[in-house]
Amino acid sequence: MMKPIYLIFVLMSLFLINSACFAQIPILNTYDSPFPKVVAPGVISQDNGVAAPSDAVSLFDGKDLSEWTGKNGNPQWAVHDGMFTVANGTGDISTKKEFSDFQLHIEFMHPSDITGEGQMRGNSGVFLQGLYEIQVLETYNNENKTYVNGQAGAIYRQHPPLVNPLKKPGEWNAYDIIFTAPTFNADKTYRTNPRVTMLLNGILIQNNAVIYGCTTDEKIFDKLKGGIKLQDHGCVVNYRNVWVREL
Amino acid sequence: MMKPIYLIFVLMSLFLINSACFAQIPILNTYDSPFPKVVAPGVISQDNGVAAPSDAVSLFDGKDLSEWTGKNGNPQWAVHDGMFTVANGTGDISTKKEFSDFQLHIEFMHPSDITGEGQMRGNSGVFLQGLYEIQVLETYNNENKTYVNGQAGAIYRQHPPLVNPLKKPGEWNAYDIIFTAPTFNADKTYRTNPRVTMLLNGILIQNNAVIYGCTTDEKIFDKLKGGIKLQDHGCVVNYRNVWVREL
Amino acid sequence: MMKPIYLIFVLMSLFLINSACFAQIPILNTYDSPFPKVVAPGVISQDNGVAAPSDAVSLFDGKDLSEWTGKNGNPQWAVHDGMFTVANGTGDISTKKEFSDFQLHIEFMHPSDITGEGQMRGNSGVFLQGLYEIQVLETYNNENKTYVNGQAGAIYRQHPPLVNPLKKPGEWNAYDIIFTAPTFNADKTYRTNPRVTMLLNGILIQNNAVIYGCTTDEKIFDKLKGGIKLQDHGCVVNYRNVWVREL
Amino acid sequence: MMKPIYLIFVLMSLFLINSACFAQIPILNTYDSPFPKVVAPGVISQDNGVAAPSDAVSLFDGKDLSEWTGKNGNPQWAVHDGMFTVANGTGDISTKKEFSDFQLHIEFMHPSDITGEGQMRGNSGVFLQGLYEIQVLETYNNENKTYVNGQAGAIYRQHPPLVNPLKKPGEWNAYDIIFTAPTFNADKTYRTNPRVTMLLNGILIQNNAVIYGCTTDEKIFDKLKGGIKLQDHGCVVNYRNVWVREL
Repeated sequence: MMKPIYLIFVLMSLFLINSACFAQIPILNTYDSPFPKVVAPGVISQDNGVAAPSDAVSLFDGKDLSEWTGKNGNPQWAVHDGMFTVANGTGDISTKKEFSDFQLHIEFMHPSDITGEGQMRGNSGVFLQGLYEIQVLETYNNENKTYVNGQAGAIYRQHPPLVNPLKKPGEWNAYDIIFTAPTFNADKTYRTNPRVTMLLNGILIQNNAVIYGCTTDEKIFDKLKGGIKLQDHGCVVNYRNVWVREL
Repeated sequence: MMKPIYLIFVLMSLFLINSACFAQIPILNTYDSPFPKVVAPGVISQDNGVAAPSDAVSLFDGKDLSEWTGKNGNPQWAVHDGMFTVANGTGDISTKKEFSDFQLHIEFMHPSDITGEGQMRGNSGVFLQGLYEIQVLETYNNENKTYVNGQAGAIYRQHPPLVNPLKKPGEWNAYDIIFTAPTFNADKTYRTNPRVTMLLNGILIQNNAVIYGCTTDEKIFDKLKGGIKLQDHGCVVNYRNVWVREL
Repeated sequence: MMKPIYLIFVLMSLFLINSACFAQIPILNTYDSPFPKVVAPGVISQDNGVAAPSDAVSLFDGKDLSEWTGKNGNPQWAVHDGMFTVANGTGDISTKKEFSDFQLHIEFMHPSDITGEGQMRGNSGVFLQGLYEIQVLETYNNENKTYVNGQAGAIYRQHPPLVNPLKKPGEWNAYDIIFTAPTFNADKTYRTNPRVTMLLNGILIQNNAVIYGCTTDEKIFDKLKGGIKLQDHGCVVNYRNVWVREL
Repeated sequence: MMKPIYLIFVLMSLFLINSACFAQIPILNTYDSPFPKVVAPGVISQDNGVAAPSDAVSLFDGKDLSEWTGKNGNPQWAVHDGMFTVANGTGDISTKKEFSDFQLHIEFMHPSDITGEGQMRGNSGVFLQGLYEIQVLETYNNENKTYVNGQAGAIYRQHPPLVNPLKKPGEWNAYDIIFTAPTFNADKTYRTNPRVTMLLNGILIQNNAVIYGCTTDEKIFDKLKGGIKLQDHGCVVNYRNVWVREL
């Protein structure tokens, strides 16, 4: 099949498929409906969040970012009040440790005086193995209109969340992310795709979803382990209680 | 292959394969190792537990068992102090509503003065669609020795929990169970097996585990929906905060 | 994440996401490497091909296209010599019967005097349930350069074949396609994706591949059954020995 | 759950769970219905069978068993007429090469003067990675009564074939077996189970079936590669055209 309407699309795409990552999967596009249903989660403790269990690797203990590296060494993001905050313009930060299969807990809060619209409203992201972005965005109650596979809880540009249980700005949200790492063939294509099951505020939003490929322009693709990367997208987002259990 | 050692085993089994359910899968056996690692979960609120989100079907609101039926009509299990307790000898109870794919939250607590050993220590069970038992047993810290695929958090006689994050008697535990219902072929065999992902006290204990077949002697097998059944196994177990989200 | 380079891409895509089908998945793009390895299959009988087994629905018995419909009723494709041939400009043809899960056997041959290049060299396609295209193209020995997920044996614009065992023009090829139909959620999104395992000339070329979504602009998307559609893409392609076993 | 009827069963099983393999899965039992539907495959060439494709490892070229080892070194099975035959009492034979994921083609024929009943009628077996038995048995037309998960085409004691397309004694049958090797956790439990898709005489008989665990008493369990083993079960079975493609 090769419809004329695709021709210009294919031409455009030539500019985009220059990275090793894009050799693995087709480029993915956004779509705008249907919206996930809005769900109010049950009462979630706003005090201290969920502490790390005994077998977890703590990635933030409320005091420092010693488990992380930034663009030029130590991260320049701000640590305060038991949380840390994206310092816009200082770049993404990544964990020093790398992981294969894991359960990741991470809490995030948008400021109550948030401004901006669409993808510029509270945008950040949690990159699993540095490659697969779980979107962070302020999309409480579906009020901030954007493409549904770019909402909070989406596997970026791939799967929208099943429902939308996000809490409003000024309140903490918790991601519990179960990641199954991919395995690879000799030619670096997937033998088995990565998969994600995920809760947001205790509500299932991804159910063993197949990740089609990386959502970034990362060049090294077929690695078995990778760090957790948090994105500086020019928006203010707060994080706390970050821990990983290796599976 | 047909080794002599199996002969008496096969003969014995003739007594066991008389139900419709066992036509679907081989009978499953117990095994005793390896033990799941003990994990202490982070601090879990012991006050009120996790309330139902806005899109959930509440199966127990702390006041009555009106969503359930017992052996002879209304359940005779005791409701008190915002919880309900197995009344030994009065039989299992089941929800009136039936479900296909769902997320189930249910909290349980063994009494602090618990006695008994092995499968007679705090035994109950949560039967998904009335057919697939998630074991409830007092196996805190792996101290109560029993077969590992019969521990708390096991898919009974099939999959042990990945780790053991159970809390000690007198403290509440929470199951968060994501169930994917099976689909069936015309001859009532599975087209796709049921699957379970499951957290115990926020810790992953089953990760998209394939359920091989029903764990009961239920006769009606290929149903698309079924209730949640709680087992009276002659032990005292308390439950609260039971809710289901249909997926 | 929203890099500037994507902006024009997203704008372009607005023209493409107007169908119901594209609401299900992102638009997919082509990619050009790595090429599947060329494999010469063992000796395949060129005489009569593989006859239908006893439980199959025969879709072409060598004599007529009575199991098919065309754009305006009876297909206008030519039946001759125990085979049938695309009549360019007369449109696609579809089976009258519809199928859910199935094993499909279909043989195809490009003429030995074939001309054309890229997607215009021997292009046709087998659309499973009318929605998911298995590409037919003359790409013997990888000599006809085109995007790899548009080769013969590709799930069109999604998965390239694992290897390339195509025979040269003038020789018959056989597809054996095992299709697992999708199941759907209430909002018409996939509950489980369709999957394909596939042999070309006895060689595995797709191994339980996840189909991301339909490859067509079909409007009715969430149907449980669908016919087999063969494409008139303006190229001469011969078919014979078409049969389906419902699973 | 612990019904009295299981007690003697559990006691019996204590004798059976002494191998490393049985720690991985429950012991599996046989069952007797429903029978797979009998299917007559299309005409299959009985002359030379299916030769190896260009990328295959040939495991039998019609002349010798140099790719195999037996109980005491070189196999003592008989090579004659382009085939080889089980020499009863000389033990199983295994390939020298080991494999991970693969496509295996193997043809087998029971003698036309076959005698015996049940599991003693033409019993042999193809052990994938030496651990997972694909049953070989003379069960043409379901006439030789045995448990259905012990028929030809069964994953032994686990999955019966979907249908029964076996040819009668004196005619060649062909297995085309697509094996996906398991991956393992640190504690030697499965991270992902092995899976099998399989054709018998061109007819699908296993569709991405999950293998629950090994079907043998092999002690070394968590290996990533393993040979193909053919079983001497005291019955006369002929084999030819054995080749493997590594995936």
